Order: sequence, then C-alpha cells, then structure tokens
Amino acid sequence: MADKMRAAIFLEPGRIVLGEKPIPAVGPLDALIRITTTTICGTDIHILKGEYPVASGLTIGHEPVGVIEKLGSAVAGYQEGQRVIAGAITPSGWSNASLDGCHSQCGRDTPHGFKAIGGWRFGNTIDGAQAEYLLVPDAIANLAPIPDGLSDEQVLMCPDILSTGFGGAEAGKIRIGDTVVIFAQGPIGLCATAGARLMGAAEIIAVESVPERAAISRRMGADHVVDFTREDPVSAIMKITRGRGTDVAIEALGRQQTFEWALRSIRPGGTLSSLGVYSEDLSIPLDAFAAGLGDHRIVTTLCPGGKERMRRLMATVASGRVDTSTLVTHHFGLDDIETAYDLFGHQRDGVLKVAIRP
Amino acid sequence: MADKMRAAIFLEPGRIVLGEKPIPAVGPLDALIRITTTTICGTDIHILKGEYPVASGLTIGHEPVGVIEKLGSAVAGYQEGQRVIAGAITPSGWSNASLDGCHSQCGRDTPHGFKAIGGWRFGNTIDGAQAEYLLVPDAIANLAPIPDGLSDEQVLMCPDILSTGFGGAEAGKIRIGDTVVIFAQGPIGLCATAGARLMGAAEIIAVESVPERAAISRRMGADHVVDFTREDPVSAIMKITRGRGTDVAIEALGRQQTFEWALRSIRPGGTLSSLGVYSEDLSIPLDAFAAGLGDHRIVTTLCPGGKERMRRLMATVASGRVDTSTLVTHHFGLDDIETAYDLFGHQRDGVLKVAIRP
Amino acid sequence: MADKMRAAIFLEPGRIVLGEKPIPAVGPLDALIRITTTTICGTDIHILKGEYPVASGLTIGHEPVGVIEKLGSAVAGYQEGQRVIAGAITPSGWSNASLDGCHSQCGRDTPHGFKAIGGWRFGNTIDGAQAEYLLVPDAIANLAPIPDGLSDEQVLMCPDILSTGFGGAEAGKIRIGDTVVIFAQGPIGLCATAGARLMGAAEIIAVESVPERAAISRRMGADHVVDFTREDPVSAIMKITRGRGTDVAIEALGRQQTFEWALRSIRPGGTLSSLGVYSEDLSIPLDAFAAGLGDHRIVTTLCPGGKERMRRLMATVASGRVDTSTLVTHHFGLDDIETAYDLFGHQRDGVLKVAIRP
Amino acid sequence: MADKMRAAIFLEPGRIVLGEKPIPAVGPLDALIRITTTTICGTDIHILKGEYPVASGLTIGHEPVGVIEKLGSAVAGYQEGQRVIAGAITPSGWSNASLDGCHSQCGRDTPHGFKAIGGWRFGNTIDGAQAEYLLVPDAIANLAPIPDGLSDEQVLMCPDILSTGFGGAEAGKIRIGDTVVIFAQGPIGLCATAGARLMGAAEIIAVESVPERAAISRRMGADHVVDFTREDPVSAIMKITRGRGTDVAIEALGRQQTFEWALRSIRPGGTLSSLGVYSEDLSIPLDAFAAGLGDHRIVTTLCPGGKERMRRLMATVASGRVDTSTLVTHHFGLDDIETAYDLFGHQRDGVLKVAIRP
Repeated sequence: MADKMRAAIFLEPGRIVLGEKPIPAVGPLDALIRITTTTICGTDIHILKGEYPVASGLTIGHEPVGVIEKLGSAVAGYQEGQRVIAGAITPSGWSNASLDGCHSQCGRDTPHGFKAIGGWRFGNTIDGAQAEYLLVPDAIANLAPIPDGLSDEQVLMCPDILSTGFGGAEAGKIRIGDTVVIFAQGPIGLCATAGARLMGAAEIIAVESVPERAAISRRMGADHVVDFTREDPVSAIMKITRGRGTDVAIEALGRQQTFEWALRSIRPGGTLSSLGVYSEDLSIPLDAFAAGLGDHRIVTTLCPGGKERMRRLMATVASGRVDTSTLVTHHFGLDDIETAYDLFGHQRDGVLKVAIRP
Repeated sequence: MADKMRAAIFLEPGRIVLGEKPIPAVGPLDALIRITTTTICGTDIHILKGEYPVASGLTIGHEPVGVIEKLGSAVAGYQEGQRVIAGAITPSGWSNASLDGCHSQCGRDTPHGFKAIGGWRFGNTIDGAQAEYLLVPDAIANLAPIPDGLSDEQVLMCPDILSTGFGGAEAGKIRIGDTVVIFAQGPIGLCATAGARLMGAAEIIAVESVPERAAISRRMGADHVVDFTREDPVSAIMKITRGRGTDVAIEALGRQQTFEWALRSIRPGGTLSSLGVYSEDLSIPLDAFAAGLGDHRIVTTLCPGGKERMRRLMATVASGRVDTSTLVTHHFGLDDIETAYDLFGHQRDGVLKVAIRP
Repeated sequence: MADKMRAAIFLEPGRIVLGEKPIPAVGPLDALIRITTTTICGTDIHILKGEYPVASGLTIGHEPVGVIEKLGSAVAGYQEGQRVIAGAITPSGWSNASLDGCHSQCGRDTPHGFKAIGGWRFGNTIDGAQAEYLLVPDAIANLAPIPDGLSDEQVLMCPDILSTGFGGAEAGKIRIGDTVVIFAQGPIGLCATAGARLMGAAEIIAVESVPERAAISRRMGADHVVDFTREDPVSAIMKITRGRGTDVAIEALGRQQTFEWALRSIRPGGTLSSLGVYSEDLSIPLDAFAAGLGDHRIVTTLCPGGKERMRRLMATVASGRVDTSTLVTHHFGLDDIETAYDLFGHQRDGVLKVAIRP
Repeated sequence: MADKMRAAIFLEPGRIVLGEKPIPAVGPLDALIRITTTTICGTDIHILKGEYPVASGLTIGHEPVGVIEKLGSAVAGYQEGQRVIAGAITPSGWSNASLDGCHSQCGRDTPHGFKAIGGWRFGNTIDGAQAEYLLVPDAIANLAPIPDGLSDEQVLMCPDILSTGFGGAEAGKIRIGDTVVIFAQGPIGLCATAGARLMGAAEIIAVESVPERAAISRRMGADHVVDFTREDPVSAIMKITRGRGTDVAIEALGRQQTFEWALRSIRPGGTLSSLGVYSEDLSIPLDAFAAGLGDHRIVTTLCPGGKERMRRLMATVASGRVDTSTLVTHHFGLDDIETAYDLFGHQRDGVLKVAIRP
C-alpha cells in the first residue's frame, strides 16, 4: 500500500479537481476503507457551485462502497478484506442526540450533544468518499457488511439516496391504503416513490416533466405521473383524488414552488414530508395552511445513517423489494471524475446517478 | 318554555348584538341545551372584527355549559335535566375523517368525508352558544355529562381553551424530562403551559410580557417567564437551556414573530407545535430550518372535540390536576354581552376569560 | 319485494340451517342491504360447533357485499341501488370507544362507552349477512361504496379477512426492512402475509404445512415457508435469521403452540401480534419472555371496521396492490349453504374461502 | 490511590460478602468511577438467593453515583473529579440494537447486535457498583454529569428505580386524562406511580397493603390506594372506575397474581405495562384476554439506560417534579453492606431503599 491516494478535492466554488492526498492514519475508533464504488450526489453539486460552503481542500463525497483495509485498535467484530458500506450520515452512537434516536443531528462536540446536521460529516466536515481510501469515524457504529451476492451497484444507493427517499416515506407515516404524491422524480424522489410503494400506499402520484424519469417513476411504483408543464399539478391531484387530496405529500426538490404545491395537495390532517435542501426562506400560504387550523404536519428528514439502518436497506435490496440498479445511468473511473461532475452537474444525457470506480 | 330566546348575533363587522331568535326545533339526532354558562373566545373577536367571516344573523359562541332541555328521538343514553358540556368542535363521529380519528377536520357534506376545519360548527356554520338555548348536532357523539361536584366555571374552559392548550402539548409529543417553551400566555397559552406540565416537561419556559399573565403562568407550571420586551426571547431561551434549545416550542398567538421565535428556539430534531390562528402567510427562515435538514417537525392542532375528549378533560379537572378557575376574571349576564365583548375585545382590566350566564 | 327472506340460522350447536325470516324493518339510522355475495368465516364454524355462544335463531355471517335496498330516514349521502360493503365490525362512531379510535371495542349500551368485542355485532348479537337481506346499524358510519370496476369477489375479503390480516401487520408496526414470521396460512394468515409485504417487510417467513396453502403464501409475499411437520419452526426461523430472530411474529391460528412459537421466534425487543381466537388460557414461558425483561410487546387485534377502513382496503384492492381472488376456492348459492358449511367446516377439497350468492 | 479496593462480592447462593479486589485497569473506552453512594436493588436479592444466576466472585450492584477517577484514552468531554452517575443499563451506543433505539437489549458480542437483557452488565456480567471503584464500559455513552445543586441521594434512584418506574408509565403510553392502576408500591411501583402522575393520568389507583407504602404512594401521586388483603382489587378498581376499567395497568411485582389482576383491571383496548421480574411461567386467562379479541397490549420494559436518559431523569429531579428522597429509609457504610443486605433482603424495619456510602 502506497502512502498517497487520488481524491476529488474541492478547491473553490466551481472547482472540484482530482488531486493527491496522503492516505489517512487510522485512529483507535476508525476504519480505513478502500473505495470500490462511489457516486456523486446533488449535494455535491451544491458544494461545487459554492451554494453549500465547505473548506477548501476537502475531499468530497458521502456514498461509500468498499473493502476494509485497516481497522482501528478498538474496532471489534469486523475483518480486514470484508466488503462494507457506510451511510452518508455517520452518527457517533454515543452523543445525546444519537442515544435519543436522533442520529442525524448528532453533536459530538457540543456540550449538550445535539448539532444541526451534525451527523453528516463525509465530504462536509471531514474528508469524503470520492477517493481511493476513506477513513470512517466511529467505525463500529457505521460499518455495515454487504450481504453475500449483492454487487457494489446494488448497494450503491443505500448510503444516501435510498435511505433519504425511504426516510421521507417513513417520516410521512404512510399507512396501507394511503394516497401519496411525490414532487420531483430525481434520484431521491424516485426512492421516495419506491418507499411509498413499500409502505403500502394504494395510490401514488408522481409529479415530473422529464419523460425518462416519468418512465422510471412508474417502475418504482407510481400509478400516475403528472407533468407540471402541461397542467397545474394541484388541480390534477385533486382530480385524481376526487377532491380529497392526498394523505401525504413528499417534497423532493427543495424549491418554494414544490413546497407550496405539496402543502396544497394534502387533505386536512395530512402530512407534508420534506426532503429537499432549500436555498431560500420558505413561505407557507395562509389559505393552504387553513390559517393554522388544518391539523397539518410539516416534517423534514435528513438521511438516516448508522450500520443498522444500512443493514435494513441492504436486506430490502437483497430480497428484491426494490431495485435501484436502473438509477445508475453512467460509469466512470476516478480519474474521470471531473468529466463525471460536468455531466452530472449539467444533467446531460439523461443522467440519474453515476458510478465511480477508483 | 317560550318559543323565543335571547342570543348574541353577528350582524356585520363591528356589530355583535343581543337579539331575539326562535328557540330551535329538535331533530332526531339533536339535543337542545339550556345554556347555564358560556364565554367569549379570541376567535369571536376575530369574527367581530370581520377578520374571520361568518354569515350575518349567526349566533356566536362555541363554549357551552348547560342542561339538557330536550333530546332528539334517536338520542339515547341521556336524560333531560342532565348537566352537560359539548366541545367547541362537534365531530359527527361517522364521517371518514372522524372514523379515521381526525375529528376536527370532519367533512359531513363532502363526498370523501374530510373538510378543513369542518368540525368547528358552533358560532361558525351553525348557531352558537352565546344564547339561552343551543342546538347540539350529532348529540350522541358530543354531549358529555358533567361529573358530580364540578361547578359550571370549573368546566367552562373544557370545550375550547383547555382542549386546545392541552392539544398543543399533546401534538408536541412532550416526554418526561423535556424542555418546552410556550409563546404567549393568553388563555390558550396558559392551558398549553398546564398541558406541558401535566405531560412531564422538566423545564418550562413561558414568553410573556404582561406581569399578571406571567404570574398566572408560573401557577400553571412555568419555571421561567421571559419578557420579550426586555430581552430577545431566543437568546434568553438559549441561555436557560445552555445552548441546547428546547425539545418542543408551542406557538399560542398566531403571529409571524412568535412562529419564527418558536422555530429558532427548538433544538435540531425538535417540534414546533402551533396553536395560533394566523392572519397572513408565514415565512420559514432558511437558517432556522437548517435548509430543510434539521429533522424539524411543525404541527398544527385545531381544538379536539367529541364527548370522550370532554370526559377526559373534566376528569383531569375533577382530580385537581389543573385548575382553570383563575382564568375567569369577569362575570356578566347574557343581557350585558355587548359590554362583555367590549371589555374582552379591548383586553381591558386584566381580562383573561369572562363567564356569561344567561 | 316480498316480506320474507331466506337466511342461515343458528339453532343449536351443530345446527346452522337454511330458514325463513321476515325482512327487517328499517329504522331511521339503518340501511337494508340486499346481499349479492357473502362468505363463511372460521368464526362461524366456532359458532356452529358451540365453541362461541350466540342466541338460537340468530342469522349467522359478518361479511356482506350487496346493494342498498332501503335507507333509514336519517341516513344521508347514499342512494338506493348503490353497491356497498360493510365491515364485519360495525362501530357506532359515537361511543366513547369509537371516538377514541378504539372502534372494535365499541360500547353502545355501557355507560362508559367501552365493551369487549362490542363492535362485532353481525352474526353475533344481531342478525348477520348469510341471508337475502341484511340490516346495517349506524349505516352512515358503516356503508362503504364499492369503487367502479371491482367485482363482488374482489371486495369479498375486505369486511373481515383482509382487514384482520392487515390489522395484524399494522399492530405489529412493521417497518421497511423488518423480518416477519406468520404462523398459519389460512385465509387470515395469508392476508397477514400480504399485509407484511405491503408494509415493507424485507424477509417474510410463513409457517404452514399444507402444500396448497404454502404455494398461495408465496404468491401473497412469503419468501420462505417452513413446514412445521418436517422441522422445528423456531429452529428454522433462527437459522434463516442467522440467530437474530424476527422483528415481528404474527399468530394467525389461536393455539398455545403457535402463540409460544411466535414468542420464541422474535428478537429481544420484538413484537408478537396475535390475531387468533383462542379457546383456552395461554401460557407465557418464562425463558421466552426473558423473565419479563426482554422489552417484548404482545398485541392483539380485532378486525378493524367502519366505512373509512373499508374504503382504504378497497382502494388497496383497486390499485392491484393485493389480490384476494385466489382465496375463493368454491362457489355456492344460499340454498346450498348447509353444504357449504359442511365443506368449509371440515376443510375439505382444499377449501380456503367460499363465495355464497343469494 | 491504592491498588486494592473493598467490594460486595457474590460467592454462592446465600453469600454476598465484603471482600477485596484489585482496582480495575482502565481501557481506552472506559472510565473509572470512585463510588460515593450506591444502593441495593431487589434484583440483588434475587442474586443473593440464587434465583438469578451470576458468576461466583462478581461484584454486585448497578446503581452508581460517584466521581470520575480516571478516563480512558478515547473518552472525551469529561474531566476527572467530575460528579457523575451511570445507568444500571449501559448500552454500547454502537450495537445494532442500540442504534435502533433498543438500548436495553444491546448485543455487543452477537453478530446481529441484539441480545436479551444484553444492556444490563453491572453486577450481572461485569463487576458492579457496590465497591469503592467501578469501571464503566463505553463511558462516553454512559457517564452523565450530575447537575449542580443535586445531592448524591437526590440522584441515587435515577440509574435504576426511577428509570424503570417511569419506563413502565412511558411504555403504557399514558395520556392526559387516563385512569391508571399500579400493582405493588415497592420502590419501582412508587416510581411508576410518580411517572403516571407526571404523564398526566387523571386518576391513579395503587394496590398495596403495607400502610407505610400506601402513605408514600399518595405522596407520589396515587388518588386511591386499594389494600388487596381487605378487598378484591379488581372489584375495587371496577367500582372506582364505574365499570370501565383502567386505561393502563402497571405490574411492579413480578407475580402471576398481580399480572392477572392487572390484565383483569384494564378496559377493552387497554395496556398492561409489566415491570416485574417473574420467576415462573405466566398464565393469561382466556376470559380476561377476551379470547384474543380485546385489542389488548402487554408490554414489558427493562430499565432504560444511557447518558441521555440519565440527563433527562436528573433534570426532572432538579426541577422538583419528583422527589425520591423519601424512598431512602436507611444509611450504611460499605463496611456494613452485609448488614444492609440482611435488612433489605428481609424487608425489615419498613425499609424501602438503603444508601451505601463507601
């Protein structure tokens, strides 16, 4: 093993470049993973554009699939050479937030143990997965062995996309027989659609204008796809639901428009489950909110992480309940990651997700 | 029994007057109640000012305490002469919304059975309680016998104020040991404070500037009262909680400012439980919302109703767990209701709630 | 319309016979349904054998599909001639139990409004559905219109079997990624299997020895079927789950043996969701119960009813999420109901459910 | 600091003796606590009697209050000399069970991460707290600083008794207005009573025959105390609740008789929350269980642990919501622990809890 590795490094807004870094030293609670497959997330594009600030010099990426290269001295229960994933969110397990089940808001360095978005560290506050090697902190809480028979690509969506999408459905508390609408069918929206289907929604409406995404949406579980460029989506939803509205609406884009449509599409007493990363203040229209008297719920979810979450997601993939392989539309080597960013960032060529193999 | 009765009638914005109306005829599912005590709600003031539109000629009021005068032919299980209350919200019991447990959004006349705020009928879509007699629809689902030994005033807050205030605490899913802040200590906020205390909150912060209300707030359960005219309430809350923020914030006023303060005062993963009736669009500040990634919940509650809810509230009063008698600061006869509206509408003389006795 | 009708009448243990009864008079809150299809339930066999006592002369059956013949004077929102179902359980909507969401334990005639099994009236405390006509009480809370395009047989399982089976999965609070075992794959167990699949269980194990039922079980969603006559089911489950046990076990038979197996098959912190109707005291083995320290949950469910529940179930059928048509193995006219009882009671000829058409 | 310490050591059934042991070495994830106060639990008496087997030579005790003597190299966020407690249950934080919120069933050494009662280690599988020093494993997940101003005795019940008692109320999902019965008013039952009161139960019934315990029960929140030696407790409960039964029954003794009484005292749809440690198989009477059709829930709880739980409990004590100081009836030095066992084991002299000070 050499002591240098290649990595996708954020330099400044507009520049994520392939560079070289030392392979990290392994502390007692860490594990070093040799990355075999990773991918680029929409959040990485926010970072690239400077919309979400991270430190210059940081390795980007939070969706690792790999092999254990080296285990910290205090990490038991694993073997080197074992195939594993880790979630995009790496809770400590021991913070007050984690112990209370609020893993994504894990505050390792606050006296009270909570920190907004504190569980998201890879490619945000510590070096990430778009590299040859990745150092996983609190490894014993985060390394999840890949079940035999599953390929890298089959589990590549588990660390973030699938966990987030399912998380939106779960936070919506979808019940058997519910009507659910999902706004936007990018990778996360498509996984939210799959999650709604898995939880027993009887009628699933997706809102999406790109025909290829509409087609995949139907495969993931949508019964109807509404093209918002052709008709007002709220009217279309009310027509489909015969005026009732949906029990749950999932926002999977991060815009005021979709947030507002989502709120307008739920029945009285319904739930708006928000997954989007917003970039401006949101407005809640008084009428859609029934002046505060509609028994509405607005809930947000940051990608659930930790090894038990990853285990559950991979079990769901292993049993064939969900197939995210169709989401991987393009393949690149790590050496071509700048090209991959260019393609993904500009959403060219029908890209949904790319697979990057160091 | 005469065939005419006195009633407080809404004529047009600015005018609620004492007038005369026929005593209502009793249908098979109805009950006629002779009102012994009722009160005026902040919502009635919204109606008076024309901020919440109702039909001209409607009798106002939704907080009835009285005696059964006449039962509909299909209403079993009660006796004439029995002392009862009914909730401000009168769910049908049989609508799809009611059967699903969403009583306040009961849609009696929609094909799908849901209707925003549909459960609120008294003094909104049908004649209300500020009169000598009140016709209670779906009486068998709504008449709740008053336990022996409780006075009219002891149960006067159950139909609306106590149910709403407790509802805000319940929707916040307060747990033993939680830290909770309640914004505004009017009658509903005070009952929310009592609810937070009843559910086991270990640290309760109230935000209120009126000294008399601050004093009652402490009696209802607040450990700290923050005067927002003297210090920034969010800073004060962060100081009290040593930077952690509260688990739950209850908004009990209905303004952008308090909504925003509430959002800023909760910890990551916390809940904003909103009780206020808003009169304009709300804004969610991006930073307070962690860009949608903070695992926040925003929930709204319309006063829970139905006879089982009323039974539970009266049981709580009967056992001495909560005492709302201090909230009744003034007494009036029905003949003086215009004076009562004047006092209550202008919040004169330290008024919290008035008791009206026909 | 004549004034007499044919009906399956319980006379004494061992004797359910086809007889003649007056067509019931319709009270203000009732609806008279002309039955187009009904079926026989395992509970009816308990009644036949005298194991569950009902009054001599009672019409049996609690699974009605039919057409509205006549509406009570106070029943709005329906038309005569409309195709409807009603649940096996007919909650009042207005009892304290119903208003608290506990519809199956609806106490119409108790002062406090709760009654064990009080929601089950058809073929138990009032005349049932194995007849030409059925009187539905509290019709406005219980009549659920059949969506266009669904046949009688497609909705025939909704009133009881599907609602009960799904109810067992729901009471188990199955989550995406759970491992679930269902003991016995009779009609209710098969619907519980379908419910577990619908709620996102990643690994479903059914325990059943009859090959035909095992085959249908796989179609309903089971990944593994364990034949308890060939191997110890608890050992088999532990092998499949690599020693972990299941998150949820559903008991769908009503015997000590399956109850105990279910308890032994769940992981620490797991849930035993019981659907069986037992006929003797149950024993909880100390070791399987971790002496009371295993954070176990044992929950029981009586078939959820009411029109909103029926609407949701039919929506689930309409969207193709579940197909119960394969459960109907035999057809009979009402005139042949004694033959049908004989076949079903002795479980001859691979019978699962029979369709009875008056 | 010497290298030997005194400790209460289990030798064989009937013999727990004061002995000498080496002061433990501190691993990277551990902390060494100098015990300032501890106590004896009913479970320790089970161990003493040989009813619950532990290894010969084990130090007993699981209720530590102390001062940090030495921190492991990987334990950040604490200072030596800091006053802390740790829960009786010490979850790892990182096991699959812990990450799923099921801390008490934490499986550190099972491949799947769950283990029945696995979270209970002190005085069970590793040396316990009745000693001069205690080694706390996974210290960063388990050390909870004591708030300024709280004495050792004020927090002495938090590690086990208060957490368990409150846990029983929480697992019962007590709501504002509920009626709750608690069977047995030993230390855990008394804390369950306090928990029921804290969660808003409107009517609390305790079942207890010892007059001193009945008196304390009333102080902890009971409205009624039923003496089962003078009247049948189920009949008394039905009389108090006017035939309705209780919403929740908490079993706090661990006997068939109290388990059965608890089941018979809940209403249809009610919850039996069991805290007792049983020593034989339990029987569920068919009639009390409504043959499996009563929508009953039976839930068990093992003392919740972890530093966040401890923080919440101490916050509840600090705010004066609960006062457990009256439970400490006797004081001993560690040198007199054999005398303390004798007194506590035979329940002499009105003992509830003893405080042991090394």
